[in-house]
Amino acid sequence: RNGLNQKKAAKNEEDDMKKLLICIILVLPVLAKAQDHEKVIRSIYDEALVNGHSYSMLEYLCLNIGHRLSGSPAAAAAVEWTRQTMEAYGFDTVFLQPVMVPHWVRGKKEIVRVTNSASIGNAELHSIAIGNSVGTGPEGVHAEIVEVQDFDELISLGEEGVRDKIVFFNRGFDQRLIKTFRAYGGAVNQRGAGASNAARLGAKAVIVRSMASNNDHVPHTGALRYADDAPKIPAVAISTADADALSAALKKEGALSVYIETHCEMLPDVLSYNVIGEIRGMDNPDEYLVVGGHLDSWDVGHGAHDDGAGCVQSIEALRILKEIGYKPRHSIRAVMFMNEENGLRGGRKYAEMAGTNNETHIAAIESDAGGFSPRGFRMSGSDKQVKKLQSWGVYLNPFGLYELGAPGGGADIGPLREMGTVLFGLSPDSQRYFDYHHTAEDTFDKVNRRELELGAAAMTSLLYLLDSEGI
Amino acid sequence: RNGLNQKKAAKNEEDDMKKLLICIILVLPVLAKAQDHEKVIRSIYDEALVNGHSYSMLEYLCLNIGHRLSGSPAAAAAVEWTRQTMEAYGFDTVFLQPVMVPHWVRGKKEIVRVTNSASIGNAELHSIAIGNSVGTGPEGVHAEIVEVQDFDELISLGEEGVRDKIVFFNRGFDQRLIKTFRAYGGAVNQRGAGASNAARLGAKAVIVRSMASNNDHVPHTGALRYADDAPKIPAVAISTADADALSAALKKEGALSVYIETHCEMLPDVLSYNVIGEIRGMDNPDEYLVVGGHLDSWDVGHGAHDDGAGCVQSIEALRILKEIGYKPRHSIRAVMFMNEENGLRGGRKYAEMAGTNNETHIAAIESDAGGFSPRGFRMSGSDKQVKKLQSWGVYLNPFGLYELGAPGGGADIGPLREMGTVLFGLSPDSQRYFDYHHTAEDTFDKVNRRELELGAAAMTSLLYLLDSEGI
Repeated sequence: RNGLNQKKAAKNEEDDMKKLLICIILVLPVLAKAQDHEKVIRSIYDEALVNGHSYSMLEYLCLNIGHRLSGSPAAAAAVEWTRQTMEAYGFDTVFLQPVMVPHWVRGKKEIVRVTNSASIGNAELHSIAIGNSVGTGPEGVHAEIVEVQDFDELISLGEEGVRDKIVFFNRGFDQRLIKTFRAYGGAVNQRGAGASNAARLGAKAVIVRSMASNNDHVPHTGALRYADDAPKIPAVAISTADADALSAALKKEGALSVYIETHCEMLPDVLSYNVIGEIRGMDNPDEYLVVGGHLDSWDVGHGAHDDGAGCVQSIEALRILKEIGYKPRHSIRAVMFMNEENGLRGGRKYAEMAGTNNETHIAAIESDAGGFSPRGFRMSGSDKQVKKLQSWGVYLNPFGLYELGAPGGGADIGPLREMGTVLFGLSPDSQRYFDYHHTAEDTFDKVNRRELELGAAAMTSLLYLLDSEGI
Repeated sequence: RNGLNQKKAAKNEEDDMKKLLICIILVLPVLAKAQDHEKVIRSIYDEALVNGHSYSMLEYLCLNIGHRLSGSPAAAAAVEWTRQTMEAYGFDTVFLQPVMVPHWVRGKKEIVRVTNSASIGNAELHSIAIGNSVGTGPEGVHAEIVEVQDFDELISLGEEGVRDKIVFFNRGFDQRLIKTFRAYGGAVNQRGAGASNAARLGAKAVIVRSMASNNDHVPHTGALRYADDAPKIPAVAISTADADALSAALKKEGALSVYIETHCEMLPDVLSYNVIGEIRGMDNPDEYLVVGGHLDSWDVGHGAHDDGAGCVQSIEALRILKEIGYKPRHSIRAVMFMNEENGLRGGRKYAEMAGTNNETHIAAIESDAGGFSPRGFRMSGSDKQVKKLQSWGVYLNPFGLYELGAPGGGADIGPLREMGTVLFGLSPDSQRYFDYHHTAEDTFDKVNRRELELGAAAMTSLLYLLDSEGI
């Protein structure tokens, strides 16, 4: 009996050892992989922060090329600089993808002057024509102002309240919202659709309060889209401080008139390009991961945060992967899209060509929310895919990336969603973005080197995880 | 039997109802409390972001008073302005706490010039005397430079390598560290103890590479502390760009000499004050919660991020609680500490008085890491207390506060820890802080209104949770 017990105990021990061994065999690769991921991601951050190129690339793009609206000579320079830069890094392929883009020009400086206000006086307001707008021409437009907060108020005024007037859209950002992009989203229809909505009721022009988080004298441009069923009337933005002053004057003084003169116009489309750099995949070269930003900018400032930052971060992501010797399983592309600002032609063309060429696009990451300190990634994918991103929090949290999986993506990569591509958007801290967005203030000096580099490293790390783990 | 079953079923149902009722009774207050917390914290953020006063307070402190080193007339102005500001908000008590502080003055602009370098030439380096340093006087110091990276290297040179020379400490920030405070911590002993360590080996003066994340021409000051057992020798900081140039010249050209002239000196101690505003608690008026920053700054720039931001956020926290009609259970104090930068006399005096007056201090929150976008709170407390803070993540995450409970606190509140006070430090994004820290660049324009306000709201929310939930 004692012998039997001993035998039983020995058998039990043997079983335990077997179980342990099986556990070790099952668990070890998982642990090893986790350690690999930690090591690779650490080396990505080290390269970005110690030997990073994104900041010096951005310096060149901002200070030597400057702003680069679609169709401008500077946009052509940016295309050629981007091509040469990626060639110099020795990516496997660098190529241009032709795309016809709108060619809008601002012309002479805008004039917006209230003509009969005691409190505002005769000084020009801080104004900027809204992109894609028709101009008033040298004769200008002079009419009474009617202020509204939204389209409901506009429509309630009816034709009798609007005809032959200049509509002043003055709804500001909701400051209570923690993410400034949500405040932007709540106000931007005034800029995008205000002109056509006012034109349908007979307005002669529109003035729009700048889309800004702060209160200052800097006017913000940005695109409008004319509806097919409405006359095209001129549209200008004025600074938030001027918008407040104008609104106060209207309340105090009653009827006021304003003179607007703009010289902008839409010229015929121009040939331009998306610029694409590629590292071929080892295992699945015909399956693609994309990282990108948009190369065009508005025609003021440097387009530093919007979106020079996203472009140089995307090039940097491929450079880092190459530099640390990572051999991707899938082909990885950095795509600098053309014409996000006033047409999205580049984004649409890229998706169209991907479809035509039967290229499977697994995932795409866009950085187009500024070169600020990154806080996470937004995404468009299934619930399971969102959970997968969140499971990578263990690798990403140590680098300050906690906000993983809120809905989003990016304008340029948006058209890829139709073919099932999972979309990601780098989500930097948003508090400063709409102080500079679409203004003369969006300059290189507003970008912090480390913040830009941390964004590049975050994107590179996500590319690495997508390549090695799938989504 | 059927009747019995029916009876049994009815009894079971009754039991279930009882259980459900008990559950509801137990759970309802918890749910109600959670809803209360959400509602109160939302109202705190709304007040901070829509009607916030912190930004306009900081504007006054920076532009009308400016920098305010301990013992300076501007520090006295800051004390009086802070007192008046809190009086005007109608806090229950506002009072000054006398404290003797060091009175160091910079005197005439520093001169640092390499006297025999072909590559650097004769131009002055961008320099600033290190706070508390003795001056060279008008005769200056002129000697050969010896560069070291750390104290081990210094000591290995021995007296023969150091005597009658000027030691150049050139260890930079470790850029790989994600939190810049850790990089600062890894370099700052050169500034704090470099002079005495070099003096023990017979050095005539020291030059220290600026404590900075970035590479530019702006020199950073900050405090040194002379050891009792070493001669006091002059110490200056040079900009990171100049430090790199000097190091390169030493490598290329060999022995180089430098002329240093500084006119700083330590004068006798001066009477100054901590400024304290208080809202009396309803239930436990003799138990205190403290929120604070330090009112003194270095004698360059505006002391905007360091630590004007922390001061106005602390005043704002009490203003917001009062404005939303919150009646605290415990007494809540905003404390503007004097002399954090070069003595910590205010922090020590406050803790001493709390002890003398037998005031129980439950918790203290300091904001002294810049007015940038907040990411969480560091803390010093027991594991259980850390877990409690982390359990409040459910209320704080929606406002971007994810980093909860890493070790830390604040210099001024540090002395309270001895009496068991739980310490918290607001932890803002750190990437930009050491570009400006202790320089002429730490000015009002570097602070973003919303980022400052979000910090104030975060501190107010934590005060509210501490007051209502305990710690």
